Amino acid sequence: MMSALGQPPAYAPLDQQGLLALAAPHLPGAPESAQEIGDGNLNLVFRVRGGGGSVIVKQALPYLRVVGDAWPLTLDRARIEAEALTVHGGLAPGRVPRLLHHDAALAALVLEDLGDHEVWRRALVAGRDVEGVAAQLGDYCARTLLGTSDVLMPPDERKALALRFSNPELCAITEDLVFTSPYIDSPSNRYDDAAAEAAAELRRDRSLRRAAAMLRFRFRTRAEALVHGDLHSGSVLVAPGDARAFDHEFAFMGPMGFDLGNVLANLALARAAHEVTGNAAFARTIDAVAAEFWDAFVAGVGRLWPPSEPWREPFVAGVLADAGDYAGVEMIRRIVGLAHVADVDELPDGPRLVAQRTALACGRHLLLGGRATAFTDLWTRATREEPYA
Amino acid sequence: MMSALGQPPAYAPLDQQGLLALAAPHLPGAPESAQEIGDGNLNLVFRVRGGGGSVIVKQALPYLRVVGDAWPLTLDRARIEAEALTVHGGLAPGRVPRLLHHDAALAALVLEDLGDHEVWRRALVAGRDVEGVAAQLGDYCARTLLGTSDVLMPPDERKALALRFSNPELCAITEDLVFTSPYIDSPSNRYDDAAAEAAAELRRDRSLRRAAAMLRFRFRTRAEALVHGDLHSGSVLVAPGDARAFDHEFAFMGPMGFDLGNVLANLALARAAHEVTGNAAFARTIDAVAAEFWDAFVAGVGRLWPPSEPWREPFVAGVLADAGDYAGVEMIRRIVGLAHVADVDELPDGPRLVAQRTALACGRHLLLGGRATAFTDLWTRATREEPYA
Repeated sequence: MMSALGQPPAYAPLDQQGLLALAAPHLPGAPESAQEIGDGNLNLVFRVRGGGGSVIVKQALPYLRVVGDAWPLTLDRARIEAEALTVHGGLAPGRVPRLLHHDAALAALVLEDLGDHEVWRRALVAGRDVEGVAAQLGDYCARTLLGTSDVLMPPDERKALALRFSNPELCAITEDLVFTSPYIDSPSNRYDDAAAEAAAELRRDRSLRRAAAMLRFRFRTRAEALVHGDLHSGSVLVAPGDARAFDHEFAFMGPMGFDLGNVLANLALARAAHEVTGNAAFARTIDAVAAEFWDAFVAGVGRLWPPSEPWREPFVAGVLADAGDYAGVEMIRRIVGLAHVADVDELPDGPRLVAQRTALACGRHLLLGGRATAFTDLWTRATREEPYA
Repeated sequence: MMSALGQPPAYAPLDQQGLLALAAPHLPGAPESAQEIGDGNLNLVFRVRGGGGSVIVKQALPYLRVVGDAWPLTLDRARIEAEALTVHGGLAPGRVPRLLHHDAALAALVLEDLGDHEVWRRALVAGRDVEGVAAQLGDYCARTLLGTSDVLMPPDERKALALRFSNPELCAITEDLVFTSPYIDSPSNRYDDAAAEAAAELRRDRSLRRAAAMLRFRFRTRAEALVHGDLHSGSVLVAPGDARAFDHEFAFMGPMGFDLGNVLANLALARAAHEVTGNAAFARTIDAVAAEFWDAFVAGVGRLWPPSEPWREPFVAGVLADAGDYAGVEMIRRIVGLAHVADVDELPDGPRLVAQRTALACGRHLLLGGRATAFTDLWTRATREEPYA
């Protein structure tokens, strides 16, 4: 659509009319109703129904709103999300929501509505195992990470991809919130009064600050693959036998271990919460889920990458070790940084503090115990530490 | 605007008239004579004199000519060279030739003439130590590598730099000639008949192939700093007390250890040549030159990076270990790959074979002996191995 002056219409937050117009071509009948389902901190997210069907419309807001403040944030992230959905969806068909339309001027996406799915984190919090999703997510990681890396993609294509997915503003958020702020006295940090002493001890730990700084450098510079960039259990929609990664706006050319480590860290946080509330059976289920995820990743690598390649084994070992390091910072920042996880935050006071201190101890062990050498090594460190401080 | 072949429409190889017109504004008087001083395989290089002064004009050719073949090669490398000279020259004043002019359409650079300098490799071959140049080159590496990395540059600026210095075509040459071909039976490989058995044994060495493939992945993906990309002793002009890195067309965002390792490998090759010809005194001089280079790099890092940063020490250790790995592939490819070094090639038959087998053994030890842990460890491996095969 062009304005009278021949310019694309300027960006504006979608009103009811614009929303219905955007959704209409993708519904089986005329649009009937729109309901906002997002939290409005970063994006507007609506479900639009019509003709017995529905779609999701997601529009990027030109700012990020957190704890009372707002700061400008590039609308280019809608393009990043649309293009990452296309690339990842092409490599791992059915493992992301279908992108129906991308409106560049409005920074808006029209997406398949997965209304019968739930966010994986909610299932984990509720102690519900959803059949098959961990294996699908591991396979998704294998396909998307290897498929956008020099392992399977011609290097010039991978380098062209790196240019398209330069995403410095969203990466800067991760660099700050995951790798920097938790290790200094930053105003963005949030933690319970009861965890204040543990947080302070963490900041005094010079070896931990060093490890986090080294890892931040790796996060910033290792352009290995088009990573999702924010693959926690709140970025996965699940139904029995169907896992879908979503919210790809943090996608960039980064280290493979980052996505894998984030999945494992969030499973470990879920496990810690069930352990402290006496749900040992579901804690054991999560052990199996984590192993299922990792095994599927390794099996996917095995299918995609000829075993004759002599560097396959050491390469996968390196990715595992990286995943352990990134899982470490993720576990720590979810306790003392800005963005927490419901798994832990929703616990009653006493168990919550134990789960928090356990997560800090596990994160610390992942970061400082040397590089993980096998999945059991990584997972033991992520889940079997005594509470910290 | 680029044509379908990636050639700006106004591009044509410089004729006498164009050459003088380009040089004129940068000479103290009217241009008088032009002399071609390059080999014409990749670029046209001229010295233009006039009014008692002189300048160098370097024009990229739209193809690369080697062993009888020619293949198209992007003219964008002239832009890369001009911009890298500007960035590196700004960070390390006086350590590169001054860029007087860049003509984008003609893919040509007008450069300060360093006619009183010689190529460092020629001095090393002749057994001449040139005072102060190793320390200056080490300092150049510290300033340019740290200065274009997340250590000293704001990450968003470093990421913007990575976009400007995307250099896939020239990187592909390095990826092929340094990391791939020497380890397979490639038609681009060249070696003496007498070294054929050693080359074949090298190709049968699965652990070496694996190490080279892993290192190629690191070379491709670790966007740490704006590296020179081809920093051998033939890319440095020297005069007493003055070292200048030149030929920046391979510059890209890559691993810091690559530049450092290339310098050290080429010193080690020079050393091997002097050792086999009985010039033990100059071999010991090169030991001192290499240490001077490395010490100056470390001292430069110390001046530029506050010692309070807890990750400085382990970071430098990691760069050293990387340099050892990259030195390993450089030593090997200079014996069995396409591009050799005069230091070894110009030796008489008998000593040449010993130097070649020594270089292969050293390269192998650098790659397979575990990561170097200190400069003496790296340098011992690079210089003290018994001949291979």
